[in-house]
Amino acid sequence: MVDIMENKIDGSVEVPKNFYNVQCVLDVPPPKGENLKMLPKIFPKELLREEMSKDKYMPIPEEVREEMMRYRPTPLVEAVRLEKQLKLPKDVKILYKREDVSPTGSHKLNTALMQAYINNKEGTERLTTETGAGQWGSALSFACKKFELDCTVYMVRASFEQKPYRKVLMRLFGADVVSSPSSRTGYGKKVLEDNPETSGSLGIAISEAVEDALNNDNVHYSLGSVLNSVLMHQTVIGQELKEQLKRIDIVPDALVGCIGGGSNFAGFMLPFIEEKMRYKDGIDVVAVEPKACPSITKGKYEYDYGDSAKQTPMLKMYTLGHDFVPAPIHAGGLRYHGKAPILSLLANKGLVRTVAYDQKAIFDAGIAFAKTEGIIPAPESSHAIRATIDMAIEARKKHEKKTIIMNLSGHGLFDMKGYEDYMDGKLK
Amino acid sequence: MVDIMENKIDGSVEVPKNFYNVQCVLDVPPPKGENLKMLPKIFPKELLREEMSKDKYMPIPEEVREEMMRYRPTPLVEAVRLEKQLKLPKDVKILYKREDVSPTGSHKLNTALMQAYINNKEGTERLTTETGAGQWGSALSFACKKFELDCTVYMVRASFEQKPYRKVLMRLFGADVVSSPSSRTGYGKKVLEDNPETSGSLGIAISEAVEDALNNDNVHYSLGSVLNSVLMHQTVIGQELKEQLKRIDIVPDALVGCIGGGSNFAGFMLPFIEEKMRYKDGIDVVAVEPKACPSITKGKYEYDYGDSAKQTPMLKMYTLGHDFVPAPIHAGGLRYHGKAPILSLLANKGLVRTVAYDQKAIFDAGIAFAKTEGIIPAPESSHAIRATIDMAIEARKKHEKKTIIMNLSGHGLFDMKGYEDYMDGKLK
Repeated sequence: MVDIMENKIDGSVEVPKNFYNVQCVLDVPPPKGENLKMLPKIFPKELLREEMSKDKYMPIPEEVREEMMRYRPTPLVEAVRLEKQLKLPKDVKILYKREDVSPTGSHKLNTALMQAYINNKEGTERLTTETGAGQWGSALSFACKKFELDCTVYMVRASFEQKPYRKVLMRLFGADVVSSPSSRTGYGKKVLEDNPETSGSLGIAISEAVEDALNNDNVHYSLGSVLNSVLMHQTVIGQELKEQLKRIDIVPDALVGCIGGGSNFAGFMLPFIEEKMRYKDGIDVVAVEPKACPSITKGKYEYDYGDSAKQTPMLKMYTLGHDFVPAPIHAGGLRYHGKAPILSLLANKGLVRTVAYDQKAIFDAGIAFAKTEGIIPAPESSHAIRATIDMAIEARKKHEKKTIIMNLSGHGLFDMKGYEDYMDGKLK
Repeated sequence: MVDIMENKIDGSVEVPKNFYNVQCVLDVPPPKGENLKMLPKIFPKELLREEMSKDKYMPIPEEVREEMMRYRPTPLVEAVRLEKQLKLPKDVKILYKREDVSPTGSHKLNTALMQAYINNKEGTERLTTETGAGQWGSALSFACKKFELDCTVYMVRASFEQKPYRKVLMRLFGADVVSSPSSRTGYGKKVLEDNPETSGSLGIAISEAVEDALNNDNVHYSLGSVLNSVLMHQTVIGQELKEQLKRIDIVPDALVGCIGGGSNFAGFMLPFIEEKMRYKDGIDVVAVEPKACPSITKGKYEYDYGDSAKQTPMLKMYTLGHDFVPAPIHAGGLRYHGKAPILSLLANKGLVRTVAYDQKAIFDAGIAFAKTEGIIPAPESSHAIRATIDMAIEARKKHEKKTIIMNLSGHGLFDMKGYEDYMDGKLK
């Protein structure tokens, strides 16, 4: 048995000193179209430099790394209680990386800190952003408080109504939180006129946040996923994981994570991809998406806009169309029409495989995890749990030896409405 | 500066192997009265043995310790960001012990695991209990799931309405959660008849849980505070703290914690009390209670019942009277009319001093802590934060050298209604 405390008590696993940039070995199709010229208006220079860079490593600024050290390295834990519940033999193992332990409850803080830091250095006064489940909005609110920026969060209406306390948390960190679509922006007004009952979407909220940044001085926009730079900031997860696995002498057979824009999963698996490309080592890299928003399993790999109002450049990605509005499932963080260009390229090359689940199946898995491991997972993370459980049971049935590592991207302590609906049989 | 990561990354601080029993040096007045004979009907034998024992150490069963090792040792952290905000000189320090990191979010799990374990060993089928804020109910629900017991939680109505998601969390762990006073018990029915609008109290909820246990076979009652044994189970906190302080070579000037029944504070400070009694070392041991429920600062030190219906034996303690119903403040865990006999005795001997704050002052402090340290404290724990901040500022003004250690008993992620009311100016 893996010593589950190993990484909690071991001082020799360090928070990485650099971000890992997969663009050193991967030619990611660049964004294109008329809107390219707006990028310098909404993003800081340093972020745009990172976006295009081919450098393999980029140093993490000391001020950012110091903040990360408040919650990193995050523990790597063996799910011994879940394994027992699933009656797994001892050569089928489930381990998970706990990104839920950050101050705001998810991996999102990794890039929020870096983006707030860069913007502060370049003189930005306020950041605008969108949030689905609220994990990203909470992280950016906290990072803006730390690096002395104002923060406006456009929160997708479905989540705004399902998770009123996420809103309180963001306000507590000093953010201004707006239900999207809103009457604050031209695009928001238009959407509300056309469809007053809309549950909103990440695409719409992005449009509003971008419009707000474009129309105001010293205001930048911040995106919590999709961008090459954001995925790079998240590689602290995978780099730590590699070190942790080395120390306990484990070679994983599979890496599993959920995908919305794709940043937690990418940050988790990208540090393993270079070897997979080079040695074809057969590691199974599995992305899990909701059936209600099946960008990779049902979408097309083509250039599309990142937002609903077509204000952003076009990105080469798996997409359901920029005007797609997913059903208001509780995994609000996964309600995005597209996927990050890096992730899309890897999926298209067959280096990542993707599976999809419906909402009921993921809550089943999330509750099984909570009852055994004692951690309430975010509904987003429960997608990874569902796939992991199914893969472990399959290995048991086929008498295969298998070690599965899963990224627990965040906790679900603000998702109790979803759990209540599930227990009361009210889930759609 | 203290290395804040010291305890997170250091393997040499172990989870204690024994509970520390302060009764080895303290003659605690025993319970008395007619109701003594009901004790064996509601408590397991082993718990009653612990209640009276004079043994200095009692071994922690391996199965319990193994569960504790999932979240212990809990980190000891220097509040560097809060210190900076308060403009403290470098010889005034604030450190806090993070009991919020347990799976259910507070110190309560320490005794819940032990009580569920003992009951399981002795063949109990179901446990009943009360809960105020919901921290205790959540912990016992989780422990019962682990040690295969059913669990019924009588939740004080004020909290039941302020914190609906705590209820969902307990249900998720398999507990049956009832708003108290309820129509499930004779006493609950009587209270509802007399005062249908009552906000409930811990005293009433205890009466209902005890009545339920008395009237059913193979059902025991579990109490989350007050008892000598419960305080002893919590001494894992203070024992760890002593080791952690030794390793970073710090001698504390003050220990600060909030008090409801008194268990988190007692578990935190009791391992230091023997030396204080022996050497009169001058360490300032500070208990913080709400002005809305000022058991020690305004109550009497006398024998009183532990519950409102006078079903329990009488305990020698500071009390506001067993029929006292406090205002429905958000710190529901501190709405108890009495205080643990051990804590009461120490307060009466002058070994512990007590201060009281009103609700607005504690939310001010809680928000200052959240904005700097990035952890949302429970309103209960914010009482300790308030007193700590005030003591640190006083030391700064008087140019004193001072190291204050505070027990952060739990997180406030389920207390967003309170924070919202505060930010909206609706707090009473």
